[in-house]
Amino acid sequence: MQGKSVTKNISIVLYKPKYAGNVGAVARAAKNMGIGNIVVVGAAELNPAEMKQRSTHLAVDVLDKIKYFDDIDTALADFQYIVGTTARVGKARGPFGTPRNVAQKIVLLARKNKVALLFGPEDTGLANKELHYCHAVVTIPSTRDFKSLNLSHAVMILCYEIFTATLPPNDPAPLKWARSAELEGMYAQIQELLAEIGFLNPENPEYWMMHLRRFFARGGLLSREVKIIRGICRQLAWAARHKTT
Amino acid sequence: MQGKSVTKNISIVLYKPKYAGNVGAVARAAKNMGIGNIVVVGAAELNPAEMKQRSTHLAVDVLDKIKYFDDIDTALADFQYIVGTTARVGKARGPFGTPRNVAQKIVLLARKNKVALLFGPEDTGLANKELHYCHAVVTIPSTRDFKSLNLSHAVMILCYEIFTATLPPNDPAPLKWARSAELEGMYAQIQELLAEIGFLNPENPEYWMMHLRRFFARGGLLSREVKIIRGICRQLAWAARHKTT
Repeated sequence: MQGKSVTKNISIVLYKPKYAGNVGAVARAAKNMGIGNIVVVGAAELNPAEMKQRSTHLAVDVLDKIKYFDDIDTALADFQYIVGTTARVGKARGPFGTPRNVAQKIVLLARKNKVALLFGPEDTGLANKELHYCHAVVTIPSTRDFKSLNLSHAVMILCYEIFTATLPPNDPAPLKWARSAELEGMYAQIQELLAEIGFLNPENPEYWMMHLRRFFARGGLLSREVKIIRGICRQLAWAARHKTT
Repeated sequence: MQGKSVTKNISIVLYKPKYAGNVGAVARAAKNMGIGNIVVVGAAELNPAEMKQRSTHLAVDVLDKIKYFDDIDTALADFQYIVGTTARVGKARGPFGTPRNVAQKIVLLARKNKVALLFGPEDTGLANKELHYCHAVVTIPSTRDFKSLNLSHAVMILCYEIFTATLPPNDPAPLKWARSAELEGMYAQIQELLAEIGFLNPENPEYWMMHLRRFFARGGLLSREVKIIRGICRQLAWAARHKTT
């Protein structure tokens, strides 16, 4: 999935935001995730200096490109897929998607369609009237006891999920472990050293070795790490033999 | 996975944060995701009023519980798993996990261990010296061109991923569709209506019906929606028969 051709079709639409600082923070958050289009509806009077302070100078280009509209009809007219966001999950307002599920759909659709992510005012959120424009409604998971996300934080989560959905699946590359022969060579050397310094019980030398084997196996060992440990053991054995001479 | 027993073992550790407002925003973000423990290291002088303004009064309880430490050794001493965050991905600083991968491990470990999420100062982030304490290092995915996340936004993403990882997997419940017999009844009725008003070509009535079938099949129909459509068709047929009489 090509990230840029997707994110250029995605816009953040802020409906009647109250605080200029939040719009600035939204610009910065969105830009980090490659989303540079912001639309502001019904809030032409926001203080530019406050906006700029929170966007930081690094995201001022996003602020400069903001499109302002007076009414929501005109603002949304050209979009082909509109996603609303809400914390209030009344039955008539759903069905609700999660940011993750909806992000997958958005990334797919945005290859050919203009997508709007619609956010309501900080205090009240989107009313049912605005949700009617939406093809999908998202609610961000949060604790039952406390649901009061800052506007820019809500935007951040949506944009982060969308950006993540454009990335190839991140299965961390597995490490390449040392071969059994390398490990057994190391264990033999450790056992010899521990026997030499009198740490192992000659009746049952395997007892402590078993604990060490478990410990090493838990995390796994790289070839290079086996070599480092063997180097240390060699040096320890040398030091032990020479200590009193 | 029980969310609460997990999140109570998780703390946000802010190393030398510069702006009180960011600490307030962090408190609010974390509380939304059920994380109420914040530790501040090397920054005892932060202005409480600024902190409170951005936490909003709703998260003041989290601010009141903040633990302050002068040095990072003492601050981290009791944690059993420490996750560092960084935007700078030098080779010696990794290997790096994604928030999603690491969140799964954190949720598992936090059932029995105290986990710290360590964040550096706003301008420089964590230095190698602080990363040395960490069992894992996370980097938040962002565009190559612009990497400048606000501190509270970075905390938000980590906490959101952790909270999401405590939830049961969200496969949206599938809708229960109308049965074929219901659909065929509806199509027959539509066809009859369209024939009656002269919309269908009597030579090939199936032509437009095929388009309508495709359209209805794309989104799927519930039983109730089939009934609503049939009700509308019945009323339309009635109106068509009575219009000129």
